[in-house]
Amino acid sequence: MNYRLTLQYDGSRYDGWQRQGNTEKTIQGKIEETLTRLLGETVEIDGAGRTDAGVHALGQSANFHTDRKLDPEKLKAELNTYLPEDIGVVRVEEVPERFHSRLNALGKTYRYRVATGEGKNVFERKQIYPLNQPLDVEAMRLGAALLVGEKDFRGFSSMKKTKKSTVRRLESVKIRELPGEVEFDFTGNGFLYNMVRILTGTLLEIGMGKREPESIGKVFQKNDRNLAGFTAPARGLMLVEVFYPKNS
Amino acid sequence: MNYRLTLQYDGSRYDGWQRQGNTEKTIQGKIEETLTRLLGETVEIDGAGRTDAGVHALGQSANFHTDRKLDPEKLKAELNTYLPEDIGVVRVEEVPERFHSRLNALGKTYRYRVATGEGKNVFERKQIYPLNQPLDVEAMRLGAALLVGEKDFRGFSSMKKTKKSTVRRLESVKIRELPGEVEFDFTGNGFLYNMVRILTGTLLEIGMGKREPESIGKVFQKNDRNLAGFTAPARGLMLVEVFYPKNS
Repeated sequence: MNYRLTLQYDGSRYDGWQRQGNTEKTIQGKIEETLTRLLGETVEIDGAGRTDAGVHALGQSANFHTDRKLDPEKLKAELNTYLPEDIGVVRVEEVPERFHSRLNALGKTYRYRVATGEGKNVFERKQIYPLNQPLDVEAMRLGAALLVGEKDFRGFSSMKKTKKSTVRRLESVKIRELPGEVEFDFTGNGFLYNMVRILTGTLLEIGMGKREPESIGKVFQKNDRNLAGFTAPARGLMLVEVFYPKNS
Repeated sequence: MNYRLTLQYDGSRYDGWQRQGNTEKTIQGKIEETLTRLLGETVEIDGAGRTDAGVHALGQSANFHTDRKLDPEKLKAELNTYLPEDIGVVRVEEVPERFHSRLNALGKTYRYRVATGEGKNVFERKQIYPLNQPLDVEAMRLGAALLVGEKDFRGFSSMKKTKKSTVRRLESVKIRELPGEVEFDFTGNGFLYNMVRILTGTLLEIGMGKREPESIGKVFQKNDRNLAGFTAPARGLMLVEVFYPKNS
């Protein structure tokens, strides 16, 4: 049997999604530990997005295999009882044996939230980057238009040199103005290491008037990380949704 | 000079509003310490509501006196910079010398949030009480109607015996149904110790079918704390607003 979990988490307390030596501090490790205890067998899960330390999720997707037939609603309730308060299971469903949450993902949406007002976000402080200055949203939209498409995003990533392709398709960048806040939604077929945070940092520099929208073209020409903007802090980033083919 | 502060805070980390021996862990203590450092003189503040440990505020009101003429906008920005991330200043304004945030308050609104769904409130977990069961809102509204008015609320309080009056006027109890959540707004001219949490606990017992709405009449007849419901946990409670006369 193969089960898919749809997960929410507040990543503030964790060293990111991916299990490392110390399973206590990663979200994957925490969920595997809880599933292993509940099922009485060693369970390993695959997550669609390997979110960094401090990054959150509204709709992370992960799957695991087991020989046992499980009741999805019962497993969801048990997981929500035994997982810590900052990790929640939204849905458990049986999926075809061949389903793999990461390899089968068609795309993902990430959201980045920035505080632009002078106030303080006391209750959402761990999900919003407190830039606390006004942003030129029109200029950022001009910049965002230059990012969309199938391109080599190597310059917008902090990956080490790799022989793997760094070409990704960025479907859309939506920029929403809210009272005291700007939200960026990035949807694409895949994201390189730190890519969303560097795209956001570059757009923020445009919004603050520190660079021209056209400067984005140069990053693509040279594929040079140093030509892109700063890496926006992890806390403002959230994995919103993972997309799969209809029949998977 | 007399200045009024409108404050928000996430009370999770604190031993409540009121300064005690150790100023580090109370909200009043933290604000007084910051003001004292900023102004270079010992500052004491009075808060309108003495929120308990773990209770939050969207609109607490406090005031302090100083000989100095201050720039309200500048003080607000400085306070927001130097106060911890879980305490925010919404407004600073000069008020008449005789203004006292607690003694002049005409009334307050407190909100209590309860999760009724099976899901988990990962991001708002510290502001919602996870009851996680359905509630009969109509029955709770019948009970709430019996609470409204000028009454002796001694039975709905965990105060020790007192010679002071325990009569308060509860103006309204509004119950709002949201997806997976019920919110209670209590507006009144004053609230006894733990009163909102005991009123909420009593209404929740009605909503869960554990007591009849009419049982509220008995609490008023006997003024007996043991006849009222449980004390709902602090985390779900928030001081929303403090009301003052128009000309104060």
